[in-house]
Amino acid sequence: MRSLRVLGVDPGLTRCGVGIVEGFVGRPLDLVDVGVVRTPSDLDLAKRLLRLERALDEIVVRQRPDVVAVERVFSQHNVRTVMGTAQASGIAMLVAARHGIPVQLHTPSEVKAAVTGSGRADKAQVAAMVTRLLRLDAPPKPADAADALALAICHIWRGAAQNRLAAAVAAAGAAR
Amino acid sequence: MRSLRVLGVDPGLTRCGVGIVEGFVGRPLDLVDVGVVRTPSDLDLAKRLLRLERALDEIVVRQRPDVVAVERVFSQHNVRTVMGTAQASGIAMLVAARHGIPVQLHTPSEVKAAVTGSGRADKAQVAAMVTRLLRLDAPPKPADAADALALAICHIWRGAAQNRLAAAVAAAGAAR
Repeated sequence: MRSLRVLGVDPGLTRCGVGIVEGFVGRPLDLVDVGVVRTPSDLDLAKRLLRLERALDEIVVRQRPDVVAVERVFSQHNVRTVMGTAQASGIAMLVAARHGIPVQLHTPSEVKAAVTGSGRADKAQVAAMVTRLLRLDAPPKPADAADALALAICHIWRGAAQNRLAAAVAAAGAAR
Repeated sequence: MRSLRVLGVDPGLTRCGVGIVEGFVGRPLDLVDVGVVRTPSDLDLAKRLLRLERALDEIVVRQRPDVVAVERVFSQHNVRTVMGTAQASGIAMLVAARHGIPVQLHTPSEVKAAVTGSGRADKAQVAAMVTRLLRLDAPPKPADAADALALAICHIWRGAAQNRLAAAVAAAGAAR
């Protein structure tokens, strides 16, 4: 099984978490890169989107991920900031599509369940598991960076589960 | 007073209205271009955003607007489609910023009030006024195209009002 390099993006305008993880199921995962893209809140919204696009484009060109995993944004909570979050996630998807890289969305509870076993885990628990799974000395800071890594890990594991399921279905079909 | 060329964008993923109007207050306005960018709803979201970006970029390069006026998206209504609308508006802002073109947001009621005199006007009323103000033979179709033209008209008129206010304030200060 080929190793997968996944860029996780926790979308946001003030802080956009980016984390790259490489690996596959059943083997220890490797941290490739982690960081946060910030844009000043007093800057024009259009210019903030442009800065975010340039930063994400630079990361994609430099790191060449196989997949970009983006947190699925819901409109029901945090109405004040959700528009900016939706726009930031759109920029991340756009940059991936421009480079021909597939995009996958994962919900916050899917991510939490993947890395902690519980879809209701808190941020500290997610950060603790990311630290352990990637064998880091300390939890990545800020929380957005840890969340981006959790997204990437979630993608590697969920993708594998989906692949196993698809393989099982195909095998069952072939056996008939 | 220099004539202003405004690109109005009524953001959407399935249909994104684009309309370019040129003119200034007190003179008849001119229609430069109008249309709708469509992306197939069965296409991957990231690829829809990429198609929209390319279409808008092509329009901006070809028409060189002085300003891009985008409808301000609210998260409270139409929760199902609002995320796509927010992302489409983000793409429009991004494209403008990339070309160094200023972006201005106008709310739907500001647009309606500007072209019909009432912030509660319906779509037919807006389309009728756009048709009259631009001296067209028939209302632009679909409604998204008419809305985009209304946004551009709104921008030209609101901008002028804001400029007059600023000039009056400056004059009052100078007279003291």
